[in-house]
Amino acid sequence: MNGAESLVHTLLQGGVDVCFTNPGTSEMHFVAALDKIDGMRCVLCLFEGVVSGAADGYARMTGTPAATLLHLGPGLGNALANLHNAKKARSPVVNVVGEHATYHIQYNTPLTSDIAGIAGPVSEWVKASQDAQSVGPDGAEAIAAARAAPGQVATLILPANTAWGKDGVVGTVPAIPEREAIDANEIDAAAEILKGGKRTLLLLGATAVFEEPLELAGTIAAATGCDVMAEGMNTRLQRGAGRLAVNRIPYPVPQALEVLKPYERILLVGAGRPAAFFAYPNSPSLLAPEGCEVIALATPEQDCAGALAALADAVGAKPNSATLQPLARPDRPTGPITLESIAAAIGALLPENAVVIDESITTGRNFYPTTAGAPPHDWLQNRGGAIGLGLPMATGAAVACPDRKVICLESDGSGMYNPQALWTQARENLDVTTLVFANRAYNILKGELANVGAGNPGPRAHDMLTLDRPAFDWVSLAKGFGVEAELVDNADDLCRAFERGIAVDGPYLVEVLI
Amino acid sequence: MNGAESLVHTLLQGGVDVCFTNPGTSEMHFVAALDKIDGMRCVLCLFEGVVSGAADGYARMTGTPAATLLHLGPGLGNALANLHNAKKARSPVVNVVGEHATYHIQYNTPLTSDIAGIAGPVSEWVKASQDAQSVGPDGAEAIAAARAAPGQVATLILPANTAWGKDGVVGTVPAIPEREAIDANEIDAAAEILKGGKRTLLLLGATAVFEEPLELAGTIAAATGCDVMAEGMNTRLQRGAGRLAVNRIPYPVPQALEVLKPYERILLVGAGRPAAFFAYPNSPSLLAPEGCEVIALATPEQDCAGALAALADAVGAKPNSATLQPLARPDRPTGPITLESIAAAIGALLPENAVVIDESITTGRNFYPTTAGAPPHDWLQNRGGAIGLGLPMATGAAVACPDRKVICLESDGSGMYNPQALWTQARENLDVTTLVFANRAYNILKGELANVGAGNPGPRAHDMLTLDRPAFDWVSLAKGFGVEAELVDNADDLCRAFERGIAVDGPYLVEVLI
Repeated sequence: MNGAESLVHTLLQGGVDVCFTNPGTSEMHFVAALDKIDGMRCVLCLFEGVVSGAADGYARMTGTPAATLLHLGPGLGNALANLHNAKKARSPVVNVVGEHATYHIQYNTPLTSDIAGIAGPVSEWVKASQDAQSVGPDGAEAIAAARAAPGQVATLILPANTAWGKDGVVGTVPAIPEREAIDANEIDAAAEILKGGKRTLLLLGATAVFEEPLELAGTIAAATGCDVMAEGMNTRLQRGAGRLAVNRIPYPVPQALEVLKPYERILLVGAGRPAAFFAYPNSPSLLAPEGCEVIALATPEQDCAGALAALADAVGAKPNSATLQPLARPDRPTGPITLESIAAAIGALLPENAVVIDESITTGRNFYPTTAGAPPHDWLQNRGGAIGLGLPMATGAAVACPDRKVICLESDGSGMYNPQALWTQARENLDVTTLVFANRAYNILKGELANVGAGNPGPRAHDMLTLDRPAFDWVSLAKGFGVEAELVDNADDLCRAFERGIAVDGPYLVEVLI
Repeated sequence: MNGAESLVHTLLQGGVDVCFTNPGTSEMHFVAALDKIDGMRCVLCLFEGVVSGAADGYARMTGTPAATLLHLGPGLGNALANLHNAKKARSPVVNVVGEHATYHIQYNTPLTSDIAGIAGPVSEWVKASQDAQSVGPDGAEAIAAARAAPGQVATLILPANTAWGKDGVVGTVPAIPEREAIDANEIDAAAEILKGGKRTLLLLGATAVFEEPLELAGTIAAATGCDVMAEGMNTRLQRGAGRLAVNRIPYPVPQALEVLKPYERILLVGAGRPAAFFAYPNSPSLLAPEGCEVIALATPEQDCAGALAALADAVGAKPNSATLQPLARPDRPTGPITLESIAAAIGALLPENAVVIDESITTGRNFYPTTAGAPPHDWLQNRGGAIGLGLPMATGAAVACPDRKVICLESDGSGMYNPQALWTQARENLDVTTLVFANRAYNILKGELANVGAGNPGPRAHDMLTLDRPAFDWVSLAKGFGVEAELVDNADDLCRAFERGIAVDGPYLVEVLI
């Protein structure tokens, strides 16, 4: 058994049985090992941004890591933006990055680079195997690192000679520690805050926005009168009819300040201290009002669900006391395409148990309210702000959940970062319906240009924020990648096209002309 | 004048008047400054791999840096692979990377990352400006660093508040040191080697493969009987009728060993010590035969052309004694598409003064000989091995050379890394004719799988090396990005389509079905 084979065995024994790949020469022994050993689902991607974004989507929906297979420093570089997103989402990922044979690195040939240096900023764990016998145990360490709660990016660098070298050893993944429970004193202190009469916000993030902890939060609200809210961007928020509906902190700073203004206490469970996405001149970075005390009850690493259960007990919350969302859909829209009619179409038609990938940026600011009463579904957002995650994340989520419909809400600017994901969707016949919102601009930046006080755009700035010279043709692009697609320019056709996508068993793309 | 404005003035005064951009919120003041101040050509790209690859192509053809505009760590990450290529090509590049306001970084909001850490592995110079008054002088330092011979990647990190802060100062670029001349003793020692009767190879790289130094090398060969060869991959090699024809070290190790076997001395001028691109089991990393002495006469940083001139003098070489390449084109091919007929078509039709971007990988191994006698042209290759450079580099070369035809020879696997470059070609009406060779496989990897001794591919490995499930449709893709395209499946149509592309004033793509 060579080193590469020992790694494949280690991954499989460690429960890692999906590998998103974009291999090169230095990974050929790993590819051969995947061939020889049964059990790994290999999903080929044309570009490494698709690989890493898919691994993020897969991890969010399964809670377990997929492997990636990347070709030296540049392959890792191409994966970097979506690894950044995965890291910020706290998604477990095991990167396997090929490297030159250890003795070859010194010759500084074209592909030589500082792989560990590139990996560092997007990985919580990085190691380069030194010989074939270490590869399996190193792989086991990588899996353990990736699985450390709530999830980490672990990068294993695999020099070619450690892959082809003999006497590989299958590694054993150590037991993953349980999530740390919150100390009873801290629960009691939090309960005192909730009962203390100050206006309090229970701000939820990470796994606290899953169905059960959300309902617990709803019972706490019922018992104490606190409000419940979620972070602005969530890794995986479970919502829809029969669940607790929560609003999120708005992205625009003035709105966020307004929403948080009433609170004297903010209790964080899985959420971070509320902060502006970007800084703006004469605008605060921190969003809680002056004098508001912000208390972290449970971090994303800790047992957020357990903390809410204990807190519910401590405040005397009653089971089934949460006010849950009733089924309530908007009417099917008709007439022209507007931000409102798009939002209504999604709310009216979203299928039950859908996995929604939301990278709709400015177009999508109405989507959240109109889908609140849709049948139960998961809502996944970009946690790291590196745009281009949508199509890859949808790809990985669909690999993770073959029995669920994935709905990808994508803006045309963001979709252009990793459009190659469509090819993998076609190749694997993944059940993804993508709506691309073609406003043919980096619309958010037009607002941001004003927000930062940079004034009204002149012709050169305007030109850098618009995408209509030439306009994209997403239908042709999708066809080029092997995905069926159509263009719609009114709400009736949008509804029909969306329904067609939902009915198809496989990928379908609708370009929505705004 | 705010910091961003001081930087734009500094760039313009430092001769940097092209900026390849993919901006975001934190770069809005820089965008506004570009709007306000005349003189900068802004070229918008949909993806940062296009930005950095275009900057590489631009630098290779002008010898001066373009600026890039990138959005925080993830934007830089997306640019990383082609910055790696630029670094290996020794191309001057000035990256301007936006960053959160200095006081905002501590809140670790979604886009916060270790930008300097990401920049390090692909930059020779990295600095984050600390206040608005430093931005201009820091920019001047960046330009000087980029221009240090033969060229470097310099990354300037621009926190938003240093861009919007007041009292910006325009920086002055210090004088760039001349390239170091080679010591007369070393020239004499090299001359002794050439005259010493040992079989000697003059191995050229970097600027030594420009027209004039090549001809000098030809006169040295005529005087001493040495052979002249170029590195396997070249930043910019000038060739064709009327110039010295040189072969390159082959990529496959067995062929490279065979080609270098006769030599007892190898004299390097701008070239590195010959080494295998990858290591393979039971195959050497270094390619020179045992006992062969390898002497570095001039490094890429030094004055390679001057070294060859001095060496020509020292060996008594006569002007006009070099045997130059006569004009000699292959016949226009007819019949089926084969590797031979494609190579003949390119040789038969390559226009005079073309800039050829060669990322044709396995398909292109015949292109070099059939184009040797074409009219004079430049031949640019991927120096860093991070595939996906072709379309972006063609984009940048076309911006640099509006009066020359750029011919991009691209394989379909590599082309899928940064296809978004086509949109910028359409937007700027860049005069690029792209031939995409559709073998619908990572064909090189099929050979590499055997080369590394990993055996014949089984179905899973085969599946990871083939791209025909589904087949791409490059004509649709190009149309999606706004570029006219056609598919050809025989040599006659290939010739007609290539001629059409050459005749068009703007981008044109031909998918060549193999």
